[in-house]
Amino acid sequence: MVNKSKFERGSRRVPIPSQKSFATTLTSNLKETFFPDDPFRKWKNQPFQRRLLLGLQYFVPIFEWAPRYQFKLFKADLIAGITIASLAIPQGISYANLATLPPLVGLYSSLVPPLVYAMMGSSRDLAIGTVAVASLLYTDILGKVVSPTDNPREYLHLAFTATFFTGVIQASLGLLRLGFIVDLLSHATILGFMGGVATSVSFQQLKGILGLRHFTHKSNIISVLKAIFSQTHEWRWQSAILGCSFLFYMLLAKFYSKRKPIFFWISAMAPLTSVILGSLLVYLTHADNHGVQVIGHLKKGLNPPSFKYLAFGSPFLGSAIKTGAITGIIALAEGVAVGRSFALVKNYHIDGNKEMLAFGLMNIVGSCTSCYLTTGIFSRTAVNFNAGCQTVVSNIIMSIAMIITLLFLIPFFSFTPLVVLSSIIINAMLGLIKYEEAYHLWKVDKFDFIICISSYLGVVFGSVENGLITAICLSVVRLLLVAARPKTVMLGNIPDTASYRNIRHYDFAHRVAGILILQIDGPINFACTNYLRERIIRWVDEEEDRIKICRGQSLQYVILDLGAVGSIDTGGISLLEEVAKLIERKSLKLILANPGSEVFKKMHLSKSIEIFGEEHIHPTVDEAVEACTFMMQASESVSTQSENDDPADQV
Amino acid sequence: MVNKSKFERGSRRVPIPSQKSFATTLTSNLKETFFPDDPFRKWKNQPFQRRLLLGLQYFVPIFEWAPRYQFKLFKADLIAGITIASLAIPQGISYANLATLPPLVGLYSSLVPPLVYAMMGSSRDLAIGTVAVASLLYTDILGKVVSPTDNPREYLHLAFTATFFTGVIQASLGLLRLGFIVDLLSHATILGFMGGVATSVSFQQLKGILGLRHFTHKSNIISVLKAIFSQTHEWRWQSAILGCSFLFYMLLAKFYSKRKPIFFWISAMAPLTSVILGSLLVYLTHADNHGVQVIGHLKKGLNPPSFKYLAFGSPFLGSAIKTGAITGIIALAEGVAVGRSFALVKNYHIDGNKEMLAFGLMNIVGSCTSCYLTTGIFSRTAVNFNAGCQTVVSNIIMSIAMIITLLFLIPFFSFTPLVVLSSIIINAMLGLIKYEEAYHLWKVDKFDFIICISSYLGVVFGSVENGLITAICLSVVRLLLVAARPKTVMLGNIPDTASYRNIRHYDFAHRVAGILILQIDGPINFACTNYLRERIIRWVDEEEDRIKICRGQSLQYVILDLGAVGSIDTGGISLLEEVAKLIERKSLKLILANPGSEVFKKMHLSKSIEIFGEEHIHPTVDEAVEACTFMMQASESVSTQSENDDPADQV
Repeated sequence: MVNKSKFERGSRRVPIPSQKSFATTLTSNLKETFFPDDPFRKWKNQPFQRRLLLGLQYFVPIFEWAPRYQFKLFKADLIAGITIASLAIPQGISYANLATLPPLVGLYSSLVPPLVYAMMGSSRDLAIGTVAVASLLYTDILGKVVSPTDNPREYLHLAFTATFFTGVIQASLGLLRLGFIVDLLSHATILGFMGGVATSVSFQQLKGILGLRHFTHKSNIISVLKAIFSQTHEWRWQSAILGCSFLFYMLLAKFYSKRKPIFFWISAMAPLTSVILGSLLVYLTHADNHGVQVIGHLKKGLNPPSFKYLAFGSPFLGSAIKTGAITGIIALAEGVAVGRSFALVKNYHIDGNKEMLAFGLMNIVGSCTSCYLTTGIFSRTAVNFNAGCQTVVSNIIMSIAMIITLLFLIPFFSFTPLVVLSSIIINAMLGLIKYEEAYHLWKVDKFDFIICISSYLGVVFGSVENGLITAICLSVVRLLLVAARPKTVMLGNIPDTASYRNIRHYDFAHRVAGILILQIDGPINFACTNYLRERIIRWVDEEEDRIKICRGQSLQYVILDLGAVGSIDTGGISLLEEVAKLIERKSLKLILANPGSEVFKKMHLSKSIEIFGEEHIHPTVDEAVEACTFMMQASESVSTQSENDDPADQV
Repeated sequence: MVNKSKFERGSRRVPIPSQKSFATTLTSNLKETFFPDDPFRKWKNQPFQRRLLLGLQYFVPIFEWAPRYQFKLFKADLIAGITIASLAIPQGISYANLATLPPLVGLYSSLVPPLVYAMMGSSRDLAIGTVAVASLLYTDILGKVVSPTDNPREYLHLAFTATFFTGVIQASLGLLRLGFIVDLLSHATILGFMGGVATSVSFQQLKGILGLRHFTHKSNIISVLKAIFSQTHEWRWQSAILGCSFLFYMLLAKFYSKRKPIFFWISAMAPLTSVILGSLLVYLTHADNHGVQVIGHLKKGLNPPSFKYLAFGSPFLGSAIKTGAITGIIALAEGVAVGRSFALVKNYHIDGNKEMLAFGLMNIVGSCTSCYLTTGIFSRTAVNFNAGCQTVVSNIIMSIAMIITLLFLIPFFSFTPLVVLSSIIINAMLGLIKYEEAYHLWKVDKFDFIICISSYLGVVFGSVENGLITAICLSVVRLLLVAARPKTVMLGNIPDTASYRNIRHYDFAHRVAGILILQIDGPINFACTNYLRERIIRWVDEEEDRIKICRGQSLQYVILDLGAVGSIDTGGISLLEEVAKLIERKSLKLILANPGSEVFKKMHLSKSIEIFGEEHIHPTVDEAVEACTFMMQASESVSTQSENDDPADQV
């Protein structure tokens, strides 16, 4: 296998990377961290005016697509817009109810924010509105400091303030290109979290279904069940029958629509149909006098300004900021993820940081026009997509439908029974409990499953915040564990090639006599240096034990393949020196193969190349192996002449 | 370059790793995490009695080395032991002073703990005693809740309690194999932290040098300077002259010893000489009546038991536990690092987890025998090493010297002036400010330097805790940033070989026409999926732009080398699928090369192998390139026949 000519050819040195100035390195690192997608690439080499236009189009995409908008697109958008408006009305009222805010605030929130998003957003499919999870968090966090029943005005103002801060935080994250903070919410975390919230919310809706008037403000399942079963005498059978019937109707419609996707509108219209049927029923039977609670009087008119209500001087400002931050990040994670999924289906690109800016402005404007937190919702977006929306114009149509509703149709909704709203919420929530996905996690990655399930249990049995914090901490611990325990694998030669692969994975790869080849998979940092030292020495010990047992050729060289070490810190460089010493103590020699440019640069700067000797660092594992084999043969032929001037032994 | 026969030979598939049971995987993961060094390897295949002996020797190493101990070693250990005892007396008194504990506690602490360590420890060079940093932390954290001047008894009892908890925490970390928590203190953090503490402590010693009686309890430099310059009228010139002379003498001795290492004992003896000279001077001149403060009356006798003083019922128990935990972890980091460095020089192995257990027991026993926190100290260990110590017996000699001192010589030290202690502390501290190492960090790794300097500034201008917490947070942020931004590099072929290397690092590596080869360096996890998607697409875009400009062969394949991806989570698997879709949209085809066993197992479990097609996953980059080249040639020859049934285009 040893090929002299190949070895001579392969005696190339690893080049020392050219010294770059500190400023260049810093700029390039900052770019990789904050602008990995290089959004301004197409601005290069353009005249100033063109750049200005591109900039405007970049930040306000409506300038980009509006001039190209065609009538044939409008027809599709009109249908989609009306469909999502029919969903927005009952959802708006229901979720406002969940956030213990006035029903009108829920409707207002489907008017202004979609218009702002239509100007700024880059998704063509996203439908904007309020979401269940954030709504519950308002009750959960704000409701703890100000009671929404005893002090509704102050609670409302704090809700606007929280929304304002949500907007500020989202816009700043977008402007500062800090989108990766949202990435800390992994899919597993969100899955468990959403499922947990859905479970909590569903149980809470038993209040509405059973027609109870008093209830706990806590969201954990034990408090909720206690509240329900402590007042069995208050249960109203009329309400329960009504609620269960509507829930059954909506589940049936969903089931049917799923089997025949062309009839998606049956499921999409079901909530509005339920609201209309329920309201008619109450109006005709005067059921509101027989234990069925209704929404009550609603005032006609569009969003009143609410800028003056922003409670910056409130003693509870801290809670408002906290609510704003938590709901803002969760809303971002949901909105951006939903936008991305549909963009992938339709093959266009969404810039996460730009979306954050759009969401942020939408919420800032919303908080000044009597809206609370809005984002892109999965259910409404899916309906929008199925209804054939072409552009974000469907959101504008939804807003117009909302204006008509608020100006003319609103009195009708006074008769809507609360129990119908509860059914609508339960129906929506059941879709968020994705047990098959959790099972998939269990099958593929146990740690992801643990993160998911602890997030779920934390929300259901603790509180929404606890669940989220537990899951994020576990995710970070996982990252740290991976960083602290990089994989080391033993490589073997793939017969008749110059390739070296994991010997435990490829059983046709085989060892090279007298040489142990190890590869480190991942960055070397202070958290893993102690581990790597122990682990590498253990590899050597185990290999020596194995050789003793099967009486093979004794070990002479250890080759460390650094090709996968993308980054290293000063602790890592010291580790390499230490390992070299430890291996030398075992009368072996450490050879390095394929150090990356960063590793090699830092080795050069800290003068450790001189410690290793440049001749012991090779560009590929193959060349390292050939050099070692060559030296072993040389020393053998020398020792048969019973001399001892092997250059490899003198080092 | 294309070699048909090579391609046919290389058409191996990547093998699917054999399914292991959940329990097997869990066991192997736990072993990698907690027992990377496999300490019980040599116990395998041994009879029970032998295992028992090995176990005893493992946990109490004295049983291993004592039977082999020889007289000729004893001579060396005796000299070393006496030398470190001469250092231990002034250091013990000084550091106790720094911790605002009675001077005798400092001396007691060099008696019992070294005996315990001699039984349990595995280092042959480590000298045990109290350390400056931990001492300062006692004043800093415990002194905040109980005043050591107004309430010295309670403060002393809390100090014993803190030491007890230090021991418990250290021993548990060792037993639970959680040594990696200590690894979170990187070298850069400790460097900055130690330097900061040394600076603070040195400034604080101006109190002693200037003979001040009242002083601030805060450790930050601004409070200290304010306290000094607000009472200029209290400055005592006698004290200042005495202090500066002794400091000058010790620095001179250190300088001389450094230049002539054979005279190390001049520097080692300097503190004791200073104490003796200072005490004599005071005794003869009655300087204690002229503004020079002295230690005062010291009681003869050995360590009294202090078990009954452990204040488990104290209202300040929380602070004691906190002090114990923080000082314990720092002491561990210092002690283990010092032990390791000297073991490396003398070529023996130190087991970090075992050392923790030894330190833990030493502190538990210490807390019951009137000692406070002890660990392995760098300065004393270096002297021990220079004095030629052979085994841990030198610690036993030091203890015996301590016993003689406490029983017979102690009254003499009553005359020791405090100003000499201050000089000794400053002299020791100056050695801890390692500006050349900080400069080395700056040169090699800017981020490590930032961590170091913020730790330093945090301690000097904030508080000891703040500095430490800032540095640890920055270190963790750095780990997360590395995890969130794995390197991606473009590979090129090294001419006449089957190797592919980073094209920006090796300028003799060149592109393969029509193919873009990317390598991901590091684990793929949820925190980096968004980044990787953007970055990979940017690589493709940039490469297409470049090809357009230089009118090369248009891109047809993107090969992703996964050889360096040691671990992946479910988000990572979805990322690969998404990238494949995005690349397909650009009419390109994604090919995977060399997925590691974990990556391939998870791809198999989540059925994504079927999405990619097994024929598009190759064991090496070379085989992937050959397959692509082969297909490109096939499609070319087909298109020259003006047909279009290329299998690669239909996917």
